[in-house]
Amino acid sequence: MSSTFGDKLKLSIFGQSHGKAIGMTLDGIPAGLPVDPDALQEFLNRRAPGKNAWSTTRKEEDRPEFLSGILEGRTCGAPICAVIYNQNTRSGDYRAIADCPRPGHADFPAQVKYGGFQDVAGGGHFSGRLTAPLCVAGGLCKQWLKMLGIEIHAHIAVLAGIGGGSFDPVAPEADQIGKDFPVLDPQAGEAMRAAIEAARAQGDSVGGIIECAVTGLPVGLGEPMFGGMENRIASAVFAVPAVKGVDFGAGFAAAYLKGSENNDPYTLVDGRIRPVTNRAGGILGGLTTGMPLIFQAAIKPTPSISKKQQSVSFSQNTVQTLEIKGRHDPCIVPRAVPVIEAAAALAVMDMCLQEGKLWN
Amino acid sequence: MSSTFGDKLKLSIFGQSHGKAIGMTLDGIPAGLPVDPDALQEFLNRRAPGKNAWSTTRKEEDRPEFLSGILEGRTCGAPICAVIYNQNTRSGDYRAIADCPRPGHADFPAQVKYGGFQDVAGGGHFSGRLTAPLCVAGGLCKQWLKMLGIEIHAHIAVLAGIGGGSFDPVAPEADQIGKDFPVLDPQAGEAMRAAIEAARAQGDSVGGIIECAVTGLPVGLGEPMFGGMENRIASAVFAVPAVKGVDFGAGFAAAYLKGSENNDPYTLVDGRIRPVTNRAGGILGGLTTGMPLIFQAAIKPTPSISKKQQSVSFSQNTVQTLEIKGRHDPCIVPRAVPVIEAAAALAVMDMCLQEGKLWN
Amino acid sequence: MSSTFGDKLKLSIFGQSHGKAIGMTLDGIPAGLPVDPDALQEFLNRRAPGKNAWSTTRKEEDRPEFLSGILEGRTCGAPICAVIYNQNTRSGDYRAIADCPRPGHADFPAQVKYGGFQDVAGGGHFSGRLTAPLCVAGGLCKQWLKMLGIEIHAHIAVLAGIGGGSFDPVAPEADQIGKDFPVLDPQAGEAMRAAIEAARAQGDSVGGIIECAVTGLPVGLGEPMFGGMENRIASAVFAVPAVKGVDFGAGFAAAYLKGSENNDPYTLVDGRIRPVTNRAGGILGGLTTGMPLIFQAAIKPTPSISKKQQSVSFSQNTVQTLEIKGRHDPCIVPRAVPVIEAAAALAVMDMCLQEGKLWN
Amino acid sequence: MSSTFGDKLKLSIFGQSHGKAIGMTLDGIPAGLPVDPDALQEFLNRRAPGKNAWSTTRKEEDRPEFLSGILEGRTCGAPICAVIYNQNTRSGDYRAIADCPRPGHADFPAQVKYGGFQDVAGGGHFSGRLTAPLCVAGGLCKQWLKMLGIEIHAHIAVLAGIGGGSFDPVAPEADQIGKDFPVLDPQAGEAMRAAIEAARAQGDSVGGIIECAVTGLPVGLGEPMFGGMENRIASAVFAVPAVKGVDFGAGFAAAYLKGSENNDPYTLVDGRIRPVTNRAGGILGGLTTGMPLIFQAAIKPTPSISKKQQSVSFSQNTVQTLEIKGRHDPCIVPRAVPVIEAAAALAVMDMCLQEGKLWN
Repeated sequence: MSSTFGDKLKLSIFGQSHGKAIGMTLDGIPAGLPVDPDALQEFLNRRAPGKNAWSTTRKEEDRPEFLSGILEGRTCGAPICAVIYNQNTRSGDYRAIADCPRPGHADFPAQVKYGGFQDVAGGGHFSGRLTAPLCVAGGLCKQWLKMLGIEIHAHIAVLAGIGGGSFDPVAPEADQIGKDFPVLDPQAGEAMRAAIEAARAQGDSVGGIIECAVTGLPVGLGEPMFGGMENRIASAVFAVPAVKGVDFGAGFAAAYLKGSENNDPYTLVDGRIRPVTNRAGGILGGLTTGMPLIFQAAIKPTPSISKKQQSVSFSQNTVQTLEIKGRHDPCIVPRAVPVIEAAAALAVMDMCLQEGKLWN
Repeated sequence: MSSTFGDKLKLSIFGQSHGKAIGMTLDGIPAGLPVDPDALQEFLNRRAPGKNAWSTTRKEEDRPEFLSGILEGRTCGAPICAVIYNQNTRSGDYRAIADCPRPGHADFPAQVKYGGFQDVAGGGHFSGRLTAPLCVAGGLCKQWLKMLGIEIHAHIAVLAGIGGGSFDPVAPEADQIGKDFPVLDPQAGEAMRAAIEAARAQGDSVGGIIECAVTGLPVGLGEPMFGGMENRIASAVFAVPAVKGVDFGAGFAAAYLKGSENNDPYTLVDGRIRPVTNRAGGILGGLTTGMPLIFQAAIKPTPSISKKQQSVSFSQNTVQTLEIKGRHDPCIVPRAVPVIEAAAALAVMDMCLQEGKLWN
Repeated sequence: MSSTFGDKLKLSIFGQSHGKAIGMTLDGIPAGLPVDPDALQEFLNRRAPGKNAWSTTRKEEDRPEFLSGILEGRTCGAPICAVIYNQNTRSGDYRAIADCPRPGHADFPAQVKYGGFQDVAGGGHFSGRLTAPLCVAGGLCKQWLKMLGIEIHAHIAVLAGIGGGSFDPVAPEADQIGKDFPVLDPQAGEAMRAAIEAARAQGDSVGGIIECAVTGLPVGLGEPMFGGMENRIASAVFAVPAVKGVDFGAGFAAAYLKGSENNDPYTLVDGRIRPVTNRAGGILGGLTTGMPLIFQAAIKPTPSISKKQQSVSFSQNTVQTLEIKGRHDPCIVPRAVPVIEAAAALAVMDMCLQEGKLWN
Repeated sequence: MSSTFGDKLKLSIFGQSHGKAIGMTLDGIPAGLPVDPDALQEFLNRRAPGKNAWSTTRKEEDRPEFLSGILEGRTCGAPICAVIYNQNTRSGDYRAIADCPRPGHADFPAQVKYGGFQDVAGGGHFSGRLTAPLCVAGGLCKQWLKMLGIEIHAHIAVLAGIGGGSFDPVAPEADQIGKDFPVLDPQAGEAMRAAIEAARAQGDSVGGIIECAVTGLPVGLGEPMFGGMENRIASAVFAVPAVKGVDFGAGFAAAYLKGSENNDPYTLVDGRIRPVTNRAGGILGGLTTGMPLIFQAAIKPTPSISKKQQSVSFSQNTVQTLEIKGRHDPCIVPRAVPVIEAAAALAVMDMCLQEGKLWN
């Protein structure tokens, strides 16, 4: 519930956008697993703001300081706590917002829920900035899953209505994802970047769809009904702000197919049973099939836009025009790509731990 | 995990398709809430098989027997256990399947996970039949939520590629949903039924999309991050077999909108703050906005088809042709409509209980 | 919470003393584990009423009917549901009690909590009868733990102030526990039985202390802090009505020892590290030490006595004299012995499942 | 599980004795609750080492830095994270211990469980130092419970076999607890301090029993079976290192009473129902009775003693004599008093939150 996740693994995320620090505690991780801080930092840099032309100019290091749980480069079995101190905070930008809820943000329901006691600066605990500790946790899990042969890769499938290509669901082309801009089709990537720039110029924003593949999973991971891989991954992925939809394999498109088109027939490869196709996205009955687990997450356009919008004043109870100033991403989709990977990694790691997959 | 759901409410579902009985225990419900068994039966009948032309001819009463938790028509505070005894079981149909996994079903990963000890008859615990106890639990929750002014209505938005209309997201037209066939547009309903008949004639099946609206929610229900309404509803809805996608409000379509198009501006109605539009599907930052909570669930075409399919033999490790005999729904979408409502009711009820919404 | 237990294993208990049935659902058990129904029945008979001179004359078969989860003598991976139908119900006895709370029972706080909607007959869901499904679940776990070499044995350490001997904490003498009356010292057993008869003759009741040993545990089972073996076992054992205290190893007596007396020095036995003594009760820092896990549970005297007691009338708000009629155990300690074993088995099984101890 | 606690409230504790920092995240607390940092510090000082003659000379400030969740002196609804940086660390003392497990400590099972990767310095995550963040969390809860009229007070009932008096279970004399040394009977307190000094002189240690009372609870808090107040409090209290037993009300002594002696008759006081006596310790059937909730916790003598002890060498697999050097408490009972209060506060706060007790 709330800002905690996991059954065997226990993640607890804390912090507000412009508070002293953000961070996370990750409990339930076996002892002796190696931690590669450079690989983690590289992963975090994919999410960090201010690293590229298309994102906010707020520059944060996003450099986690580990307070516990890691000893001489390995997990020691104790809970892992990492803190990222906020450096570049500007609460002035948000003063007006406290009285005037930004459309598309949590401001209004948060005001009602927390009775005005919530931290409004930068969205407080609802800020996308909280995906940084989520990426610390997920980035560590990605390293450990890799030791089991499980890899997680995501790319931009759609941005501003521009299609960037889809994975081959049987053999996702992870190596073809652009390093600089995470898209399979470089030309589509160019068009996407142009669309982001255009949105910025208009004081507007654009959304997209991220496709993610988890490869190397064993057959039979997951549980029936509420413990299915879809349920677990969705509960992690919907924690990412701006995600408004999740589907698996053919997903919503399966609604347009016949059973004979959507079912994946079985075959034998080197004497082992394998689906021929992968419309199921690697999950049947909540259990992994041994095929790549493939899902898509819909990301809404960033709600922070500089265009004038209609809102209200809490204090005066009047309709008002809101003009949001400050630095905002016209599109968070590129930065959300590693976040989606991190969320998936948490769900998969938790399931592996629950089912006794062993790290040696 | 597994076949249990809820934080404050605790649902535990048991049973196999062709075992002695299926059922559920629902713990954590306040004492003194009235139970209307007729309304519950009416709700269950919407899901029950054999009630109409387009579904399987297996006729089960789906009449729950309450073993505990209800006294003189009201909850007594003790866990509520309801059992539905299986009457019409035919294990013969499924003998061949034990050795030959049905494409699109959990048979193959279940065989690996449970080492052959699983109950294969009718899909065992993975059967859609397990949605009957889910509907008992969810049907009860629907009654109690109604006492708080919270109503849940779903309809078929798409079936076999045929659009049946969508709710007005600001004011869902629940009263226009067909009683006989749950669709907003009766003409589209005719076309859908014809498509189901055509699929049956071809030994094939079709899927669809169900749209569901929860009205009457207070502002601010839900929690940030992992405890958001999207996360909670998705974790319940993905427990319904055949659901392969869930999105909220504009959902995947939001990926094609600009921020200025997708944001819902605020206004005042009778002095109370209200979004003007509802592209958010009634949820911002995981919290309800007071607008109808609207989501869609993608239902894959029924995997059981009578067309020949390629599969394998577990025992002989050879590729085989599978021909599934017996009674199968060419489309479960109409019967899944109340199941989606039930799953949503469970998630909403749990959240209401957690946040101390009171029943008097 | 409430009538559910377990993290990886999920137990849900339902039923009221004089309702239609009591029972349990046990989810999360691996597939393929054998179930010995005769051994289970023998275990349940140790708890069942009416089997011996010193217990209530209410005779219930306590014969569980398995509705799911077991196939051809083995677990099938689906949740296991077992129901015990109530046969010998006499609600007449309890009519007066509905208005007049029995001292030492949950009647008064339950009346306040449930607002009078609770099932008062026989204590409803608070009845000791609910330990029957607890024993079904725990009895199954005992069988499966035995396959891992883990055994659980309890005996009466004290009854009515009469000491019955204690286990050698290094090598508990499980084989010396009386079959007919579970005590180590047969002479003390005679005195205990006489004390029970004397209490019955006086219309009074007596309590006692049960000592329980879990042998065959690996080193290192358990988690730090809230996940320690003490925490887990206590959370299960306090679910048994009438248990008012739990201590481990030297327990409360350790408060009277010096560190040099209470610490268990280490030695080597066949090249393996082992504590020499076992004042720790087999647990240090929440983790098992490889020594027998030994705990004691204090059982209060049965609150149902036929002596006159002072109580009040809910309806008239007056002080009243209460005289409880009907059949009541003057001492539940002997029947509680298998219940304590069952509760311990649940906690240990859950921990084994969480830590990936494997059944082959 | 592990170092996390709570159902509605979510506590996650991290840190190792001699690592960078220890701390906690407390999630699920309503917004707008005031925080009194001075009262919290005063509470923490009761636990802090080096403050008095009878405890270790290690002097730590134990001054928590709040990183999130508190804004302008009130909770803001976001998770509360507090960090205590370790200042006075001396890992040299513990070098020998890494190879030679200290009797009575978690060293040996931790070595097996974590394969040598655990942090051994000062006991790592198993250290009593981890009760500092537990006291931060519990100390905050104590403040908020007080706003509901719920107070928690503990004192030393027994130390080194010396009795310090017991609460009147109907009206605990919290105001008579010594400020300097938390005991009801000052003369007994003198004797206890002398016993501690004697133990120190001998290089030995002593244990004791702490009695704790929670007053001001409503009637009916708690849940049946596994969710009872006994279960919840025990699961929190056993997280405190050195606690080896917990009992409620008459507790283990109830085993020596008759039902007629142990039952608490009811009476009316100002027209309200109330037990006359309180042998039940304020709990029946897991539910509060409205009387003070009273429990005792057995604290074993500190395992760190300077007397020579027999142990083994992990590396050489030989029996060795261990002589622990460094600063150690000859008795942690006085410092454990606030820790027991904190653990109880966490369990009670969680239950209040679950049952919708409101803070305005």
